[in-house]
Amino acid sequence: MSEDDAAASDGPEIAVCVVEPQTPGNVGTIARAMKNFGLEDLLLVNPPEIEPEGEAYGFAGHARQDILPGAEEVSFEDVCEQYHTVGFTAITGEDSSRHVRFPYTTPEELKADLKAVAGPVALVFGREDKGLSNEELEQLDQVAAVPASEEYPVMNLGQAATVVMYELRTLTLPDTQLPDVDRHRAGPEDIERLHDYWDDFLTAMGHREHKHEKTERMFRRLVGRAGATDREVTTLLGVLRRATDQLEDRRERLENVDEDDSLRR
Amino acid sequence: MSEDDAAASDGPEIAVCVVEPQTPGNVGTIARAMKNFGLEDLLLVNPPEIEPEGEAYGFAGHARQDILPGAEEVSFEDVCEQYHTVGFTAITGEDSSRHVRFPYTTPEELKADLKAVAGPVALVFGREDKGLSNEELEQLDQVAAVPASEEYPVMNLGQAATVVMYELRTLTLPDTQLPDVDRHRAGPEDIERLHDYWDDFLTAMGHREHKHEKTERMFRRLVGRAGATDREVTTLLGVLRRATDQLEDRRERLENVDEDDSLRR
Repeated sequence: MSEDDAAASDGPEIAVCVVEPQTPGNVGTIARAMKNFGLEDLLLVNPPEIEPEGEAYGFAGHARQDILPGAEEVSFEDVCEQYHTVGFTAITGEDSSRHVRFPYTTPEELKADLKAVAGPVALVFGREDKGLSNEELEQLDQVAAVPASEEYPVMNLGQAATVVMYELRTLTLPDTQLPDVDRHRAGPEDIERLHDYWDDFLTAMGHREHKHEKTERMFRRLVGRAGATDREVTTLLGVLRRATDQLEDRRERLENVDEDDSLRR
Repeated sequence: MSEDDAAASDGPEIAVCVVEPQTPGNVGTIARAMKNFGLEDLLLVNPPEIEPEGEAYGFAGHARQDILPGAEEVSFEDVCEQYHTVGFTAITGEDSSRHVRFPYTTPEELKADLKAVAGPVALVFGREDKGLSNEELEQLDQVAAVPASEEYPVMNLGQAATVVMYELRTLTLPDTQLPDVDRHRAGPEDIERLHDYWDDFLTAMGHREHKHEKTERMFRRLVGRAGATDREVTTLLGVLRRATDQLEDRRERLENVDEDDSLRR
């Protein structure tokens, strides 16, 4: 858990509603992302036929086991009545002169907004080709848009929904699959030990005196930025210790050779 | 531009590399997301046949015009040599004991990391079924993972790549399609005017004296949180002004009626 997952239970229940999806594949893609990001309720307004052997199930991954078979066919009006609704569109209003598509919320801002909403929330996505109509958007509580390229902002339905659920994940996931990296970071004492070993190593290798401190500073900055783990430091300590020992051992042996040499002369 | 888009030119060039994609559809999905988020260079290691009438082009949207036809077939080794490489996996190491999949970086952290990378960057994604092998990951500079459900963290290839590009968009997009909302927010003077009109309205409607101030505070808090636009305030000012006028007008006429009435008696 490197995320603020503790917040997961703070947010409202979040459902996904797709209005008149045209291709079952996109419904499957959305169901899979729901499973990936901890959402459960899929609401479909006037959907295409979804068959167990068809494309929707083909794209759904493990969501074929629960989310897809549990999808509810609903009316747009029921969703408006029973949920705090957020409608997504790639094309917002240009300014404040009309209220249908302006002001919009970004998924990032939405994450903060939804924490303050009591009721269940429905993220509402429109048709693949035309999205949500103005008449539909007018009935929804908020309008949101995924920031994308000015040149080509129109995302595929399944991809747009995936991005939104990814961004809202801290509201829906109690936990992620990721282990806590920070628990494995090397502590300050290990890091200081690493710098001591580095110091010994520089001395043993006969690093020129005037460069010694400068090289120590370089290494401190590099290690400081890298966020080393305990194990990485342990490995480096081993390498430096052994290199230093070898350097000292060989120097001694060379001194003995010199001595023998001078005795022999 | 509600985003910190100005940073777009600060980051390094970012390419996307897919290692042995099995389904052309995923290549098309990735190409579309690249176009949506301002990336251009698609590198394919041992890809399937990509035909102009096939699935890849079907899923690519406008990326069929440039990114998909411009995709380069490359060797994994060339990518490792020529790019700062980031390998993506849903399954990280559990702790620091091995260095292949730990420590990982999240896409969010990666955004900050990549600003400090000079060379061109390749985001490297693996096969649909098995991802990247340990032997491949060992050769890459960084490992990254999209945080997802503990229960089912494995995303579809195209969806995972889309999420990553979305998260890194401030490094690749000079501008988004979204107009600046903040330029359309109502200024403090408009807001104060709104509260004056609200005050007049409460007086005109004969709101009970002891509730007047409390209701003013309620309205100040609600408006304060909503981030009203100039136009929203203008519309509200019009509604309140007209309601207040009507209330005062009707009160006067009623007083006249009462006067007439009393004269008549």
